[in-house]
Amino acid sequence: MIPVQEALAEIKRGTEEILVESELVEKLESGKVLRIKAGFDPTAPDLHLGHTVLLNKLKLFQDLGHKVLFLIGDFTGLIGDPTGKSATRPALTAEEIAANAQTYKEQVFKILDPAKTEVRFNSEWFGDKGADFMIKLAGKLSVARMLERDDFKKRFKANQSISIHEFLYPLVQGYDSVALEADVELGGTDQKFNLLMGRELQKGEGQDPQVVIMTPLLEGLDGVKKMSKSLDNYIGITEAPGTMFQKIVSIPDSLMWRWYELLSFKSLKEIDELKASIEGGANPRDVKIELAREIVARFHGEEAAASAHKGAGNVITEGEVPEGTAELAVELDGQVELAIAAIINKASLASNSAQARDMLKNGRVKVDWEAVESSLKLGQGKYLIQAGKKKIAWVTLK
Amino acid sequence: MIPVQEALAEIKRGTEEILVESELVEKLESGKVLRIKAGFDPTAPDLHLGHTVLLNKLKLFQDLGHKVLFLIGDFTGLIGDPTGKSATRPALTAEEIAANAQTYKEQVFKILDPAKTEVRFNSEWFGDKGADFMIKLAGKLSVARMLERDDFKKRFKANQSISIHEFLYPLVQGYDSVALEADVELGGTDQKFNLLMGRELQKGEGQDPQVVIMTPLLEGLDGVKKMSKSLDNYIGITEAPGTMFQKIVSIPDSLMWRWYELLSFKSLKEIDELKASIEGGANPRDVKIELAREIVARFHGEEAAASAHKGAGNVITEGEVPEGTAELAVELDGQVELAIAAIINKASLASNSAQARDMLKNGRVKVDWEAVESSLKLGQGKYLIQAGKKKIAWVTLK
Repeated sequence: MIPVQEALAEIKRGTEEILVESELVEKLESGKVLRIKAGFDPTAPDLHLGHTVLLNKLKLFQDLGHKVLFLIGDFTGLIGDPTGKSATRPALTAEEIAANAQTYKEQVFKILDPAKTEVRFNSEWFGDKGADFMIKLAGKLSVARMLERDDFKKRFKANQSISIHEFLYPLVQGYDSVALEADVELGGTDQKFNLLMGRELQKGEGQDPQVVIMTPLLEGLDGVKKMSKSLDNYIGITEAPGTMFQKIVSIPDSLMWRWYELLSFKSLKEIDELKASIEGGANPRDVKIELAREIVARFHGEEAAASAHKGAGNVITEGEVPEGTAELAVELDGQVELAIAAIINKASLASNSAQARDMLKNGRVKVDWEAVESSLKLGQGKYLIQAGKKKIAWVTLK
Repeated sequence: MIPVQEALAEIKRGTEEILVESELVEKLESGKVLRIKAGFDPTAPDLHLGHTVLLNKLKLFQDLGHKVLFLIGDFTGLIGDPTGKSATRPALTAEEIAANAQTYKEQVFKILDPAKTEVRFNSEWFGDKGADFMIKLAGKLSVARMLERDDFKKRFKANQSISIHEFLYPLVQGYDSVALEADVELGGTDQKFNLLMGRELQKGEGQDPQVVIMTPLLEGLDGVKKMSKSLDNYIGITEAPGTMFQKIVSIPDSLMWRWYELLSFKSLKEIDELKASIEGGANPRDVKIELAREIVARFHGEEAAASAHKGAGNVITEGEVPEGTAELAVELDGQVELAIAAIINKASLASNSAQARDMLKNGRVKVDWEAVESSLKLGQGKYLIQAGKKKIAWVTLK
């Protein structure tokens, strides 16, 4: 077993906040197998690397010998949105929840050790609780305290409606910690209020309160905004090895160490060595490739990672001009415009006219990343022209 | 059957507000036996005349042919105060609730017709509801709407704690109307928010919303403040006939018609006739006696009322100097003070010294309504001295 201080350093790596660190040390020193809780929505999971920051931390606890309680909040999922206002929160059926749980397992067991994971559902303990239980639970907190929660506070001030049942959900989540007798709970920083609710309710029940560990939100491909589907700056964990590899090696240098911190399983010491190698003149791209191989291997295996590495650079990623993209000139020959098919041919971006026409017909020709019609004509100027998946060039018409 | 407009006039008599009157007329005109709901706390009932204002209105509906749903809120009574802050709201046991329900029946059936009354308990429909039901119910209303309720608004503004479960109780009360399919609900003006909640939830369930009738708070013996035990300006419905009679005939004239309006079963027409009689010179005291006889008879029967009438004036009521109280003079005979026992004897308020000492020992001698010690000595002045229940006099020491 590794020393507690070393374990603590790995646990703290990249975390936003730990409440309370001294309690965590105490628990780690106890030598007990700790119960590490994390809660997940029962809606259809489709995880991206951003979600794995927390999963990685859970895995770390498993490596340290502890047990992960992977909690699926099916009890509230069965309810859906009782106000009926949100089309995005339909009540799920038990079958849907079971199917989603299966999908979760397929995805998270790429990271977590099934032998050290209990997948739990909070309907286990809420399913047979009465209406009176919910009233008693609601009695544990005041309206004013609940309105201290950031999002409630903002909505309340902005006169946006908060439905009363929303006040019950943090209490439900908090009670889950009581039912699970969690020693530690992990969650995003946006969950701080709910995570602390677990501590409060556990204290009320005479339990040792859980330590709360808040993991950060991962920056997306752009290196600035949080990774999310709606911003389209994400890497899904089921994405194809080549795409995943390509996306990782294309992240800005500024993002590289952050991703190492949050996504790599290399130790802090190994990462320090990599940093030293770059200071010694190594190419950052090689360090990104190492990260890409590690992550692709995690989700697709070593072989797929090696093959993705080999094929890397062969495929063009939308919005990213590959290094060494050719700069070509095409003469207008006194004409004002040229047809796009002619330009492709002259620039040798197609093998022949037939292939050029074919790619145009299939929308595989892009000018400045936009798919174009075969009727397009271009005049003087500089264009980024892509033909098919692999050919791209800066073309100057003059 | 009496005409709807006449029935409406009696229903409106003394009420604070009806929502919505046109709906009430429609329901009355339907010829249907209406379901008239009123909710009661399951805590130990000890009713005073103030409570009977609402009971009288329920009785009126029974006289009009309708059914009263006397709802005892045992479901929340079984919970008590989940915050544990209020010593006055302990969780009741099922046995205590049953005993209290029995006491309620004994008291309210002095007014209500048992044949037209269903005593119901909301544990009937809440007892087997799950925690999920409560969450769904909580989804029916927003925090902002709930904070519109007067007492919540005030407490919130004053930074006084509101526990979240308190937000659930109006919803519970509202759902009771759904479960009972109430056509009309009666309650105090302080219940307006909760009463309207019933309308809202019924509409949500596709039911015809209940008409809400708010009854006023009865002014107490002082004629100004609301009748309440804590103000000691009340008449309990189990008080002895003589005391009850005495208290009623002692109310200020200004209060007399208000009590007729809210407590008498005489028709509006009969009351108008009484008013005319006073304008014609009748003694207001006789009109109060008529009210006293009616009310005492209601709770103790005609015979007890007649006997109370006969004995009236024989007992002194705290704080009220009976008409014709004797004015006596007692000589100090050159001394500065006289012992109270001596004064009582000289004023003939006791039959002999032994009785005087006895009354003093038992705290039955009062000077200016205050019980006094046997060591008391009085100097020059005018005192109202009472010895026992029946003897009282103005005594001037000179």
